[in-house]
Amino acid sequence: MAMDLVIDNALLVLGGPDMETCGSGAVGIAGDEIAWVGKTPEKPRPEAARTLDAAGGILLPGLVNAHCHLPMTLFRGLADDLALDDWLTNHIFPAEARFITPHNAAAGTRLAAAELLLSGVTSVCDGYFCEEAVAEAACGLGMRVVAGHGVLDFPAPGVPDPAKSVRTAADFAEKLLDRHPLCKPSIFCHSPYTCSPATLAAAKRACRKLGILFQTHAAETKGEVERFVARHGKTPIRHLHDLGVLDENTLVVHAVWAGKEDIGLLAETGAGVAVCTNSNLKLASGIAPLPALLSAGVSVGLGTDGAASNNRLDLFSETAATARLHKAASGDPTVVDAKTALYLATEGGARASGLGRTGRIEVGWAADLVLLDPDSPSLTPCYDPVSHAVYAASAADVLHVFVAGRQVVENRRLTTADLSQILAEAREVARQIRAAR
Amino acid sequence: MAMDLVIDNALLVLGGPDMETCGSGAVGIAGDEIAWVGKTPEKPRPEAARTLDAAGGILLPGLVNAHCHLPMTLFRGLADDLALDDWLTNHIFPAEARFITPHNAAAGTRLAAAELLLSGVTSVCDGYFCEEAVAEAACGLGMRVVAGHGVLDFPAPGVPDPAKSVRTAADFAEKLLDRHPLCKPSIFCHSPYTCSPATLAAAKRACRKLGILFQTHAAETKGEVERFVARHGKTPIRHLHDLGVLDENTLVVHAVWAGKEDIGLLAETGAGVAVCTNSNLKLASGIAPLPALLSAGVSVGLGTDGAASNNRLDLFSETAATARLHKAASGDPTVVDAKTALYLATEGGARASGLGRTGRIEVGWAADLVLLDPDSPSLTPCYDPVSHAVYAASAADVLHVFVAGRQVVENRRLTTADLSQILAEAREVARQIRAAR
Repeated sequence: MAMDLVIDNALLVLGGPDMETCGSGAVGIAGDEIAWVGKTPEKPRPEAARTLDAAGGILLPGLVNAHCHLPMTLFRGLADDLALDDWLTNHIFPAEARFITPHNAAAGTRLAAAELLLSGVTSVCDGYFCEEAVAEAACGLGMRVVAGHGVLDFPAPGVPDPAKSVRTAADFAEKLLDRHPLCKPSIFCHSPYTCSPATLAAAKRACRKLGILFQTHAAETKGEVERFVARHGKTPIRHLHDLGVLDENTLVVHAVWAGKEDIGLLAETGAGVAVCTNSNLKLASGIAPLPALLSAGVSVGLGTDGAASNNRLDLFSETAATARLHKAASGDPTVVDAKTALYLATEGGARASGLGRTGRIEVGWAADLVLLDPDSPSLTPCYDPVSHAVYAASAADVLHVFVAGRQVVENRRLTTADLSQILAEAREVARQIRAAR
Repeated sequence: MAMDLVIDNALLVLGGPDMETCGSGAVGIAGDEIAWVGKTPEKPRPEAARTLDAAGGILLPGLVNAHCHLPMTLFRGLADDLALDDWLTNHIFPAEARFITPHNAAAGTRLAAAELLLSGVTSVCDGYFCEEAVAEAACGLGMRVVAGHGVLDFPAPGVPDPAKSVRTAADFAEKLLDRHPLCKPSIFCHSPYTCSPATLAAAKRACRKLGILFQTHAAETKGEVERFVARHGKTPIRHLHDLGVLDENTLVVHAVWAGKEDIGLLAETGAGVAVCTNSNLKLASGIAPLPALLSAGVSVGLGTDGAASNNRLDLFSETAATARLHKAASGDPTVVDAKTALYLATEGGARASGLGRTGRIEVGWAADLVLLDPDSPSLTPCYDPVSHAVYAASAADVLHVFVAGRQVVENRRLTTADLSQILAEAREVARQIRAAR
């Protein structure tokens, strides 16, 4: 079989739960898939239209960002260091109501996709409004995306009448199904406290009908859970379970305050969880019970959350922060080890967000790959590429990126769009936001 | 006054406790100092041999890494995810005993200095062995360094006889005093549990005589404090205080388990603290009481610790992690705000480590400056450059770096040494380390 590309002389991190590695291996790509993996330095390599010498750099599966609100890059650093209510009510909601149009959502998404691709993230699971514009913008830059259309029981950007929110989201999903090989549509209910039981159940029914992912924030803050229990007599996650919403095609975002029973329900139903460590820290939401989720067998991915609360869509930073934090939080330096953290940032996130076969270097899996700079001082010397990918690597080390076999980043430059144009568009929206404050 | 360089059209973050900013300002450099600051876009600018157009990029004071063990880059990723005792006893100590020679310490330091400078760190406060080689290697790359010679009551690299450890360190410090404008020597007692009261007192006497910084690790882990109290009837920090070691020229490293009384002693004596958030998380040591230290008025800086426990010498990552973590740890999203965090990463670290006038953009202060890439997607759009410097910036965004007026990084490339040579040297040492395991 002739390859389109062979990446040779790479330090391979193959991914998967065992996180197997091999020095000086090679990967062959045909079309959008990995078609051949050579785990030894021995030649010959398959015939290929192009051969890329990785020069000993670490080649790993593309990172998967399991939770984002892509257009919110437009609000990056607009307001920080505030209590959650103040931040949302006085800064983020008003900015969203006024400035999230399809045009601006596309501009914010292009900016986000540029940042993600340049930092080694090849797939993102999104939830927001004007999501058709989001999906088109992300795919346009060559990014793999789960595009979740937002659902809320009050007026939202592009959905002025909440009575039509599930219908609008379902129509979006039906329209986008199989439209673009890089895009999977989804429905994203904001939360059990902003969506009624009827809304949640109807949205999940629409997802089941289309065979797509259902997403929702839940148990992000202690106050949210306490208020929910006071009102409904059960936790938000138990509520989702009792509505029949939890299954293998549901992604629960945050779950910071998931208790033991909640974790049992997630594990039992096969629902996934997106852990957003940096956002949860910055908003003072807390620390998700990640070791307990993993022990229970819950499917977990890592997300950056939106750039308004992070403020950077950098999954290397997220992965390192997650691996480090849980050691101190538990007092045990062996928990969430490098293999586990990197699995969550790759295949774990892909599984939790229903992306299918991406996040592993294996024949038949998507050719979503990241090559780290072999001449980065931060990655020198190298005793263990998995340790480096988690504890030492950063966006600064990302040299080349491939999504579905297409090289989207070459020598730290985006190949799929004009970055200066993307920056100019985002700055123009920001100018309007600034003027309106 | 004619300038050597004017950096124009910059988004200035001036530093200092108020963290004043101004859009489209300019900074003039003469020799090794900042000689002029223009806080408005109005021309004219002073005459200058060279003008650099910052193109709207954020110009901020160079970051100060308040705690590092520079040569330990050689052990980056050698062992992770282990209990502290196992990590130290079975991996780090044997590697140090065998491989820390002046030649290798210099190789590791050059690698560290390259990484630091390329990520916007202009000053570092170090503590290790073979420190003369460390100081020369760091200054050779144009890095500002506090070089702390290690003291231990057992044999150490370059100091086989512990009876001579204070004498060796004092001789080193005397020899390096005023030798290089970028270097301040210091004495670094490893800890109150590895140095006797007599050793600590003698080392501090030598520091006082020479007017230099005394450094020591203390209260890093809960177990250390509990064992110390059981043996000595007082905490390590109280012990240092009772020995007369705490004053404005002492830097206590970690202080994770500093109690209320300890914090009072630090504040009362003016001793500084280096907080090493990521290292403390990764080793499961805990979370330093930073808000309490700051409320008490303790002088605090941020350190990366050595690359064996971090595993990256990236102060942007450290600053963001510190600002985020304490919000979740305290449940208050307003603590350690962006201004505070950036102050700690700049002037705060310089004060705590006795570096003098670096860490602020002000006439008469050292021309230690970092320009961030105006065309970084992660820093776009920009509503608040202080927020961006803390929550959004990373090593990937560092474009130009100046230390004492000299441009040490230009367009992401080190100007002061051949990076490929530095990487080759470090890899050769690593090859020997790997072969010996």
